[in-house]
Amino acid sequence: MLEKQVDDLVKQMTLEEKVGQLNQKLYGWQVYRKIGNQYELTETFKQHVQKFQGIGALYGLFRADPWSGIHFENGIPLEDSIHVTNMIQDYLKEHTRLGIPTLFSEECPHGHQALDSTVFPTHLGSGATWNTDLQTSVSEYIALELMERGVHLGLVSTLDIARDPRWGRTEECFSEDPYLAARMTKAVVKGMQGDNKEAPNVIAVLKHFAAQGAAVGGHNAGPALIGERELREIYLPPMKAGVRSGALACMAAYNEIDGIPCHSNRKLLTGILREEWSFNGIVMADGTALDRLLLLTGDKELAAAYALNAGVDLSLWDDIYTQIEVAVMNGKIKESVVDKAVKRVLYVKFLLGLFSEKVNKQKCASVSRKEGKTLNLEMARQSITLLKNKHHLLPLSKTNKTVAVIGPNADNVYNLLGDYTAPQRKESVVTIKQGISEIVEEGCEILYTKGCRIRSTDMSDFNNAKTIASKADVVILALGGSSAREFGMEFQDNGAVIDYDQAEMDCGENIDVANLDLGGVQKELVQELASLNTPMIGVLIQGRPYSLKDIEPYLDAILIGWYPGQLGGQAIAEVIFGDVNPSGKLPVSIPYSADQLPVYYNAKNSGAKSDYYDEVGHAMYSFGYGLSYSLFPCEFSTKEHETISIHSLTNGERLHVSVDVSNTGAYDGFAVVQLYIQDLEASVTQRIKELKAFKKIWIPAGETKNVRLQLGFEELAIWDLEMNQVVEPGNVMLMIGESSDQLDEKKLVIHEE
Amino acid sequence: MLEKQVDDLVKQMTLEEKVGQLNQKLYGWQVYRKIGNQYELTETFKQHVQKFQGIGALYGLFRADPWSGIHFENGIPLEDSIHVTNMIQDYLKEHTRLGIPTLFSEECPHGHQALDSTVFPTHLGSGATWNTDLQTSVSEYIALELMERGVHLGLVSTLDIARDPRWGRTEECFSEDPYLAARMTKAVVKGMQGDNKEAPNVIAVLKHFAAQGAAVGGHNAGPALIGERELREIYLPPMKAGVRSGALACMAAYNEIDGIPCHSNRKLLTGILREEWSFNGIVMADGTALDRLLLLTGDKELAAAYALNAGVDLSLWDDIYTQIEVAVMNGKIKESVVDKAVKRVLYVKFLLGLFSEKVNKQKCASVSRKEGKTLNLEMARQSITLLKNKHHLLPLSKTNKTVAVIGPNADNVYNLLGDYTAPQRKESVVTIKQGISEIVEEGCEILYTKGCRIRSTDMSDFNNAKTIASKADVVILALGGSSAREFGMEFQDNGAVIDYDQAEMDCGENIDVANLDLGGVQKELVQELASLNTPMIGVLIQGRPYSLKDIEPYLDAILIGWYPGQLGGQAIAEVIFGDVNPSGKLPVSIPYSADQLPVYYNAKNSGAKSDYYDEVGHAMYSFGYGLSYSLFPCEFSTKEHETISIHSLTNGERLHVSVDVSNTGAYDGFAVVQLYIQDLEASVTQRIKELKAFKKIWIPAGETKNVRLQLGFEELAIWDLEMNQVVEPGNVMLMIGESSDQLDEKKLVIHEE
Repeated sequence: MLEKQVDDLVKQMTLEEKVGQLNQKLYGWQVYRKIGNQYELTETFKQHVQKFQGIGALYGLFRADPWSGIHFENGIPLEDSIHVTNMIQDYLKEHTRLGIPTLFSEECPHGHQALDSTVFPTHLGSGATWNTDLQTSVSEYIALELMERGVHLGLVSTLDIARDPRWGRTEECFSEDPYLAARMTKAVVKGMQGDNKEAPNVIAVLKHFAAQGAAVGGHNAGPALIGERELREIYLPPMKAGVRSGALACMAAYNEIDGIPCHSNRKLLTGILREEWSFNGIVMADGTALDRLLLLTGDKELAAAYALNAGVDLSLWDDIYTQIEVAVMNGKIKESVVDKAVKRVLYVKFLLGLFSEKVNKQKCASVSRKEGKTLNLEMARQSITLLKNKHHLLPLSKTNKTVAVIGPNADNVYNLLGDYTAPQRKESVVTIKQGISEIVEEGCEILYTKGCRIRSTDMSDFNNAKTIASKADVVILALGGSSAREFGMEFQDNGAVIDYDQAEMDCGENIDVANLDLGGVQKELVQELASLNTPMIGVLIQGRPYSLKDIEPYLDAILIGWYPGQLGGQAIAEVIFGDVNPSGKLPVSIPYSADQLPVYYNAKNSGAKSDYYDEVGHAMYSFGYGLSYSLFPCEFSTKEHETISIHSLTNGERLHVSVDVSNTGAYDGFAVVQLYIQDLEASVTQRIKELKAFKKIWIPAGETKNVRLQLGFEELAIWDLEMNQVVEPGNVMLMIGESSDQLDEKKLVIHEE
Repeated sequence: MLEKQVDDLVKQMTLEEKVGQLNQKLYGWQVYRKIGNQYELTETFKQHVQKFQGIGALYGLFRADPWSGIHFENGIPLEDSIHVTNMIQDYLKEHTRLGIPTLFSEECPHGHQALDSTVFPTHLGSGATWNTDLQTSVSEYIALELMERGVHLGLVSTLDIARDPRWGRTEECFSEDPYLAARMTKAVVKGMQGDNKEAPNVIAVLKHFAAQGAAVGGHNAGPALIGERELREIYLPPMKAGVRSGALACMAAYNEIDGIPCHSNRKLLTGILREEWSFNGIVMADGTALDRLLLLTGDKELAAAYALNAGVDLSLWDDIYTQIEVAVMNGKIKESVVDKAVKRVLYVKFLLGLFSEKVNKQKCASVSRKEGKTLNLEMARQSITLLKNKHHLLPLSKTNKTVAVIGPNADNVYNLLGDYTAPQRKESVVTIKQGISEIVEEGCEILYTKGCRIRSTDMSDFNNAKTIASKADVVILALGGSSAREFGMEFQDNGAVIDYDQAEMDCGENIDVANLDLGGVQKELVQELASLNTPMIGVLIQGRPYSLKDIEPYLDAILIGWYPGQLGGQAIAEVIFGDVNPSGKLPVSIPYSADQLPVYYNAKNSGAKSDYYDEVGHAMYSFGYGLSYSLFPCEFSTKEHETISIHSLTNGERLHVSVDVSNTGAYDGFAVVQLYIQDLEASVTQRIKELKAFKKIWIPAGETKNVRLQLGFEELAIWDLEMNQVVEPGNVMLMIGESSDQLDEKKLVIHEE
């Protein structure tokens, strides 16, 4: 029925009107002007609407950040939001022939990048939770905040795989592992779009499709030189899982794959995505990415033809899709190809109810800020990953001590939040120092000094730091990095940073680094304070794994907080002082240094020596690792090997692997049971180990629980010589444990019938 | 006619005899025992011959090195060599039913790895000469030395591309660039096999096919994750050029390519190599590489089937090809597939004249040791690459000065020679100190001390070094690395090093490093000596590019000697004292550090930012760079753009680009004119620049010469979306110059007709 409505509408449209529907040219913050409490639409907007008789989508109406230049004074507050979206839709209805509404698309990589929206931990932190249900709840909540303002499309990074930590967007990835990222992607789609596939809440625009994490050298948007098997094994699983869960949109990635830019990659965007996986949503271009096709074509119309024929439906800020009309007239694009893309865009508009005049106001009512805070805090708590806890220093008791809180990330609001974050009201964010101050009880004194900045080499505060550390019973040292953009920075036309505060920011989009050591004089600060012999807890606030080898020996405990979001400071305090038992597991391997990259856990089993002459080849802390205040030994419920037939796997049956997990410690807590496999007989090279199932489970102290993990066709299949996805007969090693490097083993025998 | 002889012979053979012809199981040094001046064949040998009624090939009869344990006492001297090969052939004729002779195969990556053979510069040094004619002469000479002993197959690394300097086999590569490596490969084939394709001198076994240089992390034999376009653009051109030049053998590479080990890669070894390129020679396995297929199959017969079906004809040391008979009997391999491989091996034996009882003695007579020395010296001279020459410090005058010669590589014999080198007589090698001592004239005093070792942290000789440096007018500091294996080391069963002298060796097969800084305390030695303010010349002896950023500021002149071979010390002295005007050009980019890898010059033009936040993205010294004592500005002879049609290119026509090169300096010398292109309009991503033609030319001081460089179909073609090699219409930028980063530009327009 929707299809017919779409067809009928397209039949009425002129070529120009069609082209209008494929364009998302405007920067949302440039379509309005706020004058006092009034809003008016700009000439830029009106001229664009007149020219194309409509707008496919409008990006970033609510975006607020240093790049857009939008802040509390000139931006749209929550209470005016729905008024402004309605004003724009009304204008489109009144000033275009067919009155087609626009899609509002907004960034929400970890919460809506708008004034007064909730800022959750960045995805590398969510990945560390290994909690897909929690991710679903968080995404559901983010969708409610988007709907409250009338937003339809939420741009969210779920597809990128973090294979090279030099990449500044590592923070946006869930993991280095395709399975964990795929499970999280599924959780995001389920959360944002809701269960009703006929009436999605908000459509998740999953980004980036595909293989951006394979960029050579960790350079943002750099070429991925990989082959199709590597692509399918590592980079495609998240989108495939997304499509299986009903995802209705994705964003093409800036990078090329083996010579073909994703934006002109028909095999990727049509062959695999639509024909193989039956995706029926829209593919959006990345910001100005279509302009980059000029590096190939030298011609805008040809660039438009490349992208449209490949399967890009909707532009983003580029000049290319404004040329479609001319390209059709010049015979470079068939109008039938234009029609296909237009139908996909309109299909999504119908599906979202844009033509039925529904305003999302009834849904708005259900946004509970309190629930948002609860979810945000829980996500932060579960993301915190404990790497070291010498002599059980942690948790600290809350009473009768002097605590020195030191470090560039101890009392900084923005450094906790990651890239793609809107300006904050001070009261929205709890810093680490605040969190600690609020949690301690009688007899506690908190001393604070910054010590140093993230990248500055200024050591002038070292003496203050030593002074307070020498007075303290324990030092909490908040180090790491920052993706905080500041007003006054320079940006590319896609929002990537050109110039920045040399003293502070060291991560985020286009902030790729060569060296993975902590910046500035942080290492020196650690060493300086270590000389005092006060017990020292390192808290790392970071969007990428840093090399810890130079500081690890000096720290008695090490916690990674990732970018923990608005309530991160509270969550960290709760972990340090024992209100929360840490349960984060590394979503990425932590290397010894950039020299040894790559160090992901799921390397190929090639027979090559993994160690270097001058350095080990493996990670300092491996994927899946993370301590608790308890211990959770796990073992297979039976020692007998498992068997299953290819026939039954092909028919959808799944192998159930039963595992017993005990909490042998004194604290209740979450265990994360991880099941890895190694395929021992295959026609193509397999990996040393691959995560294929996991479960996060709460186990009270002293109890044992049984966990059943499942392996089906998708988990046991390989991409064979002819690039078919098949399960082959033979032996597979099953490995379970609490980390990728401490595993109980037994065999699975796969037979034909 | 040969084909018929081969067919007739195969018809007479039993399956067992056929399998014998596919095996190269034995280590050559284990087939004989030397007792006094007599040689006897071992039981190992005789039993193998009896079992298989013959031997396909015998590897390393003359190999002498710490791994084989062969040295001057127990090895075969030159004068006995032909006697021993004849003894083996006689045994085979007399003790097997069909009397099929064996092929003798030997390592000759830079000269035959045998006692008293000539040791030339390693290939990274040859690559720096950019002199293909010289390489042909050298290879021709190496073939003579091989023939002199009755050797048929010379194993020589020409196909590996040096893309990650962490790889310990970088020294064996000609270049990071496929075009330079392809030209050099062609030169090797021409030199070793000779012009008569019906009667090759020695067959070059080109190794390794393919993409070993793409191994992830620079790990030796690690997986190459690359796609087919990257494979074809970067890694296949050398072998393609080799086949075009008549190459009759190659060795499969250890690594996998996108999940498929080269040894089981039918597309590579049959599809591309034989069907696409019409290669009709043999494919040899790498040492024990077939055993590594057990990582896939877990079954030897199946491993044999994988490899034989893929196109591997001849084994090397593995257990796998001894199982072929059983595999055929168990139905895992068709005998017709065995026959194909046997025919290829026998074809080569007929071609080499093994059945016509020719002994190579008449050819032996023509081996002139004097010519060998001349060639070796010339190759060393032309390989030396001058990177820095502040205030024209070089060349030094030969009279009236005190010269301090310091450094771990100043007076070391083996460190000059690289991996795969036989034990040397002291008089065969000229060290740097010797070279300098011999070249200086009256009034010169040479002072020497070692200063430090390659990797040891012992600084006890620093004071001696400072003392002599303070007395000197100039310091020549020989630093770098070493691939010198020593007796007493431990080796894998393929000769790769397991354990080594921690104080010295830092390069060579399986000696991959994470960090690219100079080892040990070499940097500290430089800094210490720099405090004296004596002019200082750094000479780097190295098998990989080291990071020079920490030492460059302290050195007034920097020369790279690579591993310059037996006469390297003389050549270096000749350059320093002006007898030779340096003409080496970097065959690989020199990075600032391992953190910024990869840094090859021919990166994809993807629009991504190449610089990191904390380090530039480009090399410290780029591919193609190298100073002379003269200057050679070059420019296009005409400023007009060039044109050529696809039609004429397809018909074999070539574009002639005329360039004028002047020697504007005071010294006669070689210029290396380099022509790069950038394809500005293409259906797939192109590279920033690609070397497509070059010419090394001698230009007397003050003269100008005209050079005509050619571009044909192969140089202008790309691998399009469907992986067809096509020339596309559009603009191409032509760039000429003396380095990849200083270029004169003009356009080439390619049109359809």
